[in-house]
Amino acid sequence: MDVCLLGCGGMVPLPNRSLTALLVRQNGKMILIDCGEGTQVSIRKTGWGFKSIEAVFFTHYHADHIAGLPGFLLTLGNSGRKEPLTIFGPPPLEFVIKSLMVIAPELPYEIRLVEFSPQTAQNIEIGEVVVETLPMEHSIPCLAYRLMIKRAGKFDAVKAKKLDIPLNLWNRLQKGETIEYKGTRYEPDMVLGKERKGMKITYCTDSRPTMQFAEFAGESDLLICEGMYGDENLLPKAKERMHMTFSEAAEMAERSRSKELWLTHYSPSVSDPDQWISQIKSIFNNTVTGHDLMIKQINFTDET
Amino acid sequence: MDVCLLGCGGMVPLPNRSLTALLVRQNGKMILIDCGEGTQVSIRKTGWGFKSIEAVFFTHYHADHIAGLPGFLLTLGNSGRKEPLTIFGPPPLEFVIKSLMVIAPELPYEIRLVEFSPQTAQNIEIGEVVVETLPMEHSIPCLAYRLMIKRAGKFDAVKAKKLDIPLNLWNRLQKGETIEYKGTRYEPDMVLGKERKGMKITYCTDSRPTMQFAEFAGESDLLICEGMYGDENLLPKAKERMHMTFSEAAEMAERSRSKELWLTHYSPSVSDPDQWISQIKSIFNNTVTGHDLMIKQINFTDET
Repeated sequence: MDVCLLGCGGMVPLPNRSLTALLVRQNGKMILIDCGEGTQVSIRKTGWGFKSIEAVFFTHYHADHIAGLPGFLLTLGNSGRKEPLTIFGPPPLEFVIKSLMVIAPELPYEIRLVEFSPQTAQNIEIGEVVVETLPMEHSIPCLAYRLMIKRAGKFDAVKAKKLDIPLNLWNRLQKGETIEYKGTRYEPDMVLGKERKGMKITYCTDSRPTMQFAEFAGESDLLICEGMYGDENLLPKAKERMHMTFSEAAEMAERSRSKELWLTHYSPSVSDPDQWISQIKSIFNNTVTGHDLMIKQINFTDET
Repeated sequence: MDVCLLGCGGMVPLPNRSLTALLVRQNGKMILIDCGEGTQVSIRKTGWGFKSIEAVFFTHYHADHIAGLPGFLLTLGNSGRKEPLTIFGPPPLEFVIKSLMVIAPELPYEIRLVEFSPQTAQNIEIGEVVVETLPMEHSIPCLAYRLMIKRAGKFDAVKAKKLDIPLNLWNRLQKGETIEYKGTRYEPDMVLGKERKGMKITYCTDSRPTMQFAEFAGESDLLICEGMYGDENLLPKAKERMHMTFSEAAEMAERSRSKELWLTHYSPSVSDPDQWISQIKSIFNNTVTGHDLMIKQINFTDET
């Protein structure tokens, strides 16, 4: 699973800092989370193309997370897209998307809208990726997302031979298929070990920290979390505006036992996020200050 | 009058080419024409600030000319703006602006909307600048704009002395004021020569070329005109999509006897607009291929 932080800015785009958006690629299919003004330029810079973006998820509808949508939709159309595009988000999804589409009224593909509950966790599958939501605490309904790829147990060839399972069925059983073959029923459980650790990316912006979020993000391979202010003196401002400080984001990473934290969604007043890095690393060591177009490949780790 | 071409791209923003927008500054007051996605980043790069932008004019409501509005309005609010902002444009101005403002619902200043007729020429004054409209030929209602600063005749001090006009009235008469003073009425005409040539900037995108436009742009100090395609073989495409080729824009400059032409609003397929420059210069010699953040100061030229 390839992850690209398309931009790391909050509130306003700056000449060298685009607004926060995330692009995730798995087996050639892509998922976009948030689409602030300029997101289409960042996508162009990745070189990953537009056409295979399967779905767009919105955390919430503040302009810095969605103003790039009309231009993105038109550019997706120009890329030759014909297949439907599904847009997911909290309420009022249809009202917001249809309002913005007054300047993108004619697209060569269908737009499908799926509204998530603002109060309860929900999930959806996009190809191999399971996307789950968690309601967060912001000034308007806002969701965090976690993207997971499950991993089946290891195939036990010795056991398969012992059970006389025909060789031509092995691959299908390994993929989790149940098979009826010459009057016998073969289940994947017969030849697969216990489910192995998959991959997990969690993304949260904008919100105050919550205990539910630390649990939701539990053992993420990568936690991408807003850090609006580096200066701890701005904690009252963070509370008032329902954002997090860098320290609070690092505490979320620590509590969730995530492997790595990317800070993002900086206030324009944060000119150099690295200024606070040593202090943040004392809370959660594997913290990285996000920057535009930062890319990471996440792989399955547990090979036993 | 300072003119800055904020971007020179048409349809989609590219990593090094922002969408077409123009910023004009006169005596500290600014006028913005069009506001595609990313315009606020270009404005930030000029260093001219946001706060003194007095008015925004829209040529039409295709996304590449307006998608940056919600972010721009919010950033203007963050700049400390309290005074009302007036937005001008063809119909359906109110429908489009109110739809886009669902993601910028709360601003610390008032928005005033003034809709121009899509069929007849109109004008408005923004400080010293007279802005006039001309309906153009595009797939949706679209206006060209010309910005003019008038210049009064030269003050004739010899004549003022001869007429015994009190010295303390000279400055006010020079500024065009009619004065009643100690029972005598003084008119500017008494001491001013005939009106001198002012300054004129004309801006047109998107449209087919028209004879009315060549007349409207007559004797512009600077004509900023769309040139969607450099390759003349794409003339049928330009006609179909209601745009101009570089040659057609140059013909408009020639017919209007403008002093200088800036080409802008290039198709993303135009990778190097200078490729066609010698051919275009044979039609209108003082053609400049526009690029992002190109700036020019326009001055009064006729000092006699």
